[in-house]
Amino acid sequence: MLSYDLSRGKGPLYQKLYQHIKQDILQGKLSSGEKLPSKRMLAKHMGVSTITVENAYDQLMGEGYVYALPKKGYYVANLSDVGKIRPPAPADLHIQVPEKREEWRFDFSSNRTEPENFPFSIWAKLMRETISVKERELLQVPFCGGVLELRQAIAGHLSSFRGMAVDPNQIIVGAGTEYLYGLLIQLLGRDKVYCVENPGYDKVPKIYESNGATCVYAAMDREGIVVDDLRCQMAQVAHVSPTHHFPTGITMPASRRYELLAWANEVEERYIIEDDYDSEFRLKGKPIPPLFAIDACEKVIYMNTFSKSLTSTIRISYMVLPEHLAKAFYQKLSFYACTVPTFEQYTLAAFIRRGYFEKHINRMRLHYGRMRTRIMEIIDRTFLPGECRVMENDSGLHFVLELATKMSDREMEEHLREQGIKMKALTDFQMTGEAKNGHQFILNYSNMDVEGLEEALLCIRKLLEQET
Amino acid sequence: MLSYDLSRGKGPLYQKLYQHIKQDILQGKLSSGEKLPSKRMLAKHMGVSTITVENAYDQLMGEGYVYALPKKGYYVANLSDVGKIRPPAPADLHIQVPEKREEWRFDFSSNRTEPENFPFSIWAKLMRETISVKERELLQVPFCGGVLELRQAIAGHLSSFRGMAVDPNQIIVGAGTEYLYGLLIQLLGRDKVYCVENPGYDKVPKIYESNGATCVYAAMDREGIVVDDLRCQMAQVAHVSPTHHFPTGITMPASRRYELLAWANEVEERYIIEDDYDSEFRLKGKPIPPLFAIDACEKVIYMNTFSKSLTSTIRISYMVLPEHLAKAFYQKLSFYACTVPTFEQYTLAAFIRRGYFEKHINRMRLHYGRMRTRIMEIIDRTFLPGECRVMENDSGLHFVLELATKMSDREMEEHLREQGIKMKALTDFQMTGEAKNGHQFILNYSNMDVEGLEEALLCIRKLLEQET
Repeated sequence: MLSYDLSRGKGPLYQKLYQHIKQDILQGKLSSGEKLPSKRMLAKHMGVSTITVENAYDQLMGEGYVYALPKKGYYVANLSDVGKIRPPAPADLHIQVPEKREEWRFDFSSNRTEPENFPFSIWAKLMRETISVKERELLQVPFCGGVLELRQAIAGHLSSFRGMAVDPNQIIVGAGTEYLYGLLIQLLGRDKVYCVENPGYDKVPKIYESNGATCVYAAMDREGIVVDDLRCQMAQVAHVSPTHHFPTGITMPASRRYELLAWANEVEERYIIEDDYDSEFRLKGKPIPPLFAIDACEKVIYMNTFSKSLTSTIRISYMVLPEHLAKAFYQKLSFYACTVPTFEQYTLAAFIRRGYFEKHINRMRLHYGRMRTRIMEIIDRTFLPGECRVMENDSGLHFVLELATKMSDREMEEHLREQGIKMKALTDFQMTGEAKNGHQFILNYSNMDVEGLEEALLCIRKLLEQET
Repeated sequence: MLSYDLSRGKGPLYQKLYQHIKQDILQGKLSSGEKLPSKRMLAKHMGVSTITVENAYDQLMGEGYVYALPKKGYYVANLSDVGKIRPPAPADLHIQVPEKREEWRFDFSSNRTEPENFPFSIWAKLMRETISVKERELLQVPFCGGVLELRQAIAGHLSSFRGMAVDPNQIIVGAGTEYLYGLLIQLLGRDKVYCVENPGYDKVPKIYESNGATCVYAAMDREGIVVDDLRCQMAQVAHVSPTHHFPTGITMPASRRYELLAWANEVEERYIIEDDYDSEFRLKGKPIPPLFAIDACEKVIYMNTFSKSLTSTIRISYMVLPEHLAKAFYQKLSFYACTVPTFEQYTLAAFIRRGYFEKHINRMRLHYGRMRTRIMEIIDRTFLPGECRVMENDSGLHFVLELATKMSDREMEEHLREQGIKMKALTDFQMTGEAKNGHQFILNYSNMDVEGLEEALLCIRKLLEQET
């Protein structure tokens, strides 16, 4: 019987076992046609689990060193054959790829969600259920807009959560909002002039430009995008986030919403894209209905994602099209297959339908609320009055801290960078033109390390004190 | 204790239980603030499982009829509150959506794969393993090109299966080839002239046009795309499927492959997109290496998908970029997040690494080989010599049947349609210009109902006989 010492060396057991057997085959200690011990026998003999042996045998088979005969067992392959068809080794070109994540002592800029907050055990339970209950449905090609069960669940959620009356056939499910923007450009046309908020989320204009559409910028004031600037820029499609604007944190008041809808209705081909990306996390105050809910003239396209509210690794977003655009979508773009696997769609449908999504949102709102309170306390006790001012509106997962400094925003960022602290200014998100809101910095707290916050804030305070 | 008769009526038990309790709440039999029995108690009392009660309570909570207090239990909500915030009912706009699937007595045109052939139990096993082993990795945002483990597994597969030496960083994983074409157009530029095969797969030009790129057509001869026609059309990017062209079934010989590579090398900005969509199913004969493997000048972009080889509901495709384009991709387009969920990526990686993919391919090749033999036998015994000719090359999942008829292709299709038989002619895939290959029809057999084939072929034969 084969005997190897698997206690030495690094890596998983099955890899070591695989290496040993492969070596024996290559050195001729095991010869072509020789029968290998059964998985159970070898496992018992070596004192490892059958799965370890199975994985090692699987890999040996995958690489052609071993073959299996049904009901007989495993045999060493004829190596001269392996030699002949020996495939090229995978190349190694040392292509430089974007770095995964920078290492910072403290990072105020990351808007990732904390993986620990995702209700993984419930999700796993629903995945297991979906596997056993939906075998047939999982293998059916879904409708181009997504699985009906999921679109119905989303319609239900939008109704109770956002006051939106939506037909499931208005909902198009896709693998991320970035993908859906690409579809929207194909639907509305790349000859249109798209206008984004300035300052704003820098990925959005990148997507428009990468898709060959004209992208212009409209200024923001205290109430949100400046409607007159939309006119100046000759915008045809306004891309806005009225619930919680990034980076300013502004929630657009009702009056500006109606002004924006009025603008859209002046000319037939105007539209509004309403990005509602973190509306679930409004912490207090009376919710303002989304533009979509008060639009009577089919001018608003509503966008939202589960990447923010659940976890960024679930690539499920959706858009809600006004009736005539939904019809146009099915006519023009239904040749595209839905980009989200049926498996994730059914799992998410169950997650929403059975109330887990609502529970999760409520739990997260409490969690973020507590976090915010703690953060405010720490800010209060770290700074002296007049050194800084928190600008917040109880919405979403970031707020703005205005610092009493004469330093330029770049200088402040550079000083902090030297100390391993990443903090971005509002002015970093100014896409064009002169930035107005100096000395205002963004504090994302969705995965903030609150324990280390005081130390990071003290570094900032020291910089302020050195000035005076 | 609540008591209901759950034996009557249709639907799952928990639904009936939910309905009963909801009714009692609405009718005031259960009043605001009243405590409901614990899940376990009610389950025992009613003789149902705890899960049934849990699901019913979950739904009642989801709709606001019931609320839970941690460690205390379930209580009837204050209905006057429910009334106040009662959300709008989901709308029903009767939007006409594309029909899911037409009903045919016999369909020669469907290129779907048979869901029954997907090794679901192994896949489910690996999904369960992934859930329990990869919890941490599942919640990490993957690299823009996809999870490394999967890209390594694909590189290994391409090495042993297609003789391609590939660095995993050349591989970009995406939610379907349609999505990847969209990315490619952004990478190569929509100012390029893209050229597709004529006749060819009609979805490809749709995607180019929908993305605002110029799309032209080059003729096919017996060996594949006509290289001189690429020059005439001023093509810059040639989109070809040399392993198995749809619809003609042509496998491009080596000489034409080199001619095509020569064309690409005449001018700097020329590229070839090699769509290798069903290369796994070559049934016999010496395999011809893909263009990518014989390209020494970074001119070929290789595309393949698991939708064809596994199941169409798994939306995982990939492209392999030549080194300089991989670098350009990371520079220009790495702001896009990967569109495939981490969960599917890890599951597929395990499926490939542990040899299941290769096993599945081998099994399917046997299966399709047997199917093809049976189909040929049925054709042989149904038609008289001279009535038809099978044009095949042992590659891929369709072949071409040439019929001895004077009818036009449209007439033949129309006659068959009347009898519930869907069959498409090669000429249906002629995108522009005059079609040459009349009387040639496509027989897709990837999910053909072989039992009903003879009857369908007899209908065709009858049409041929009526002519004479």
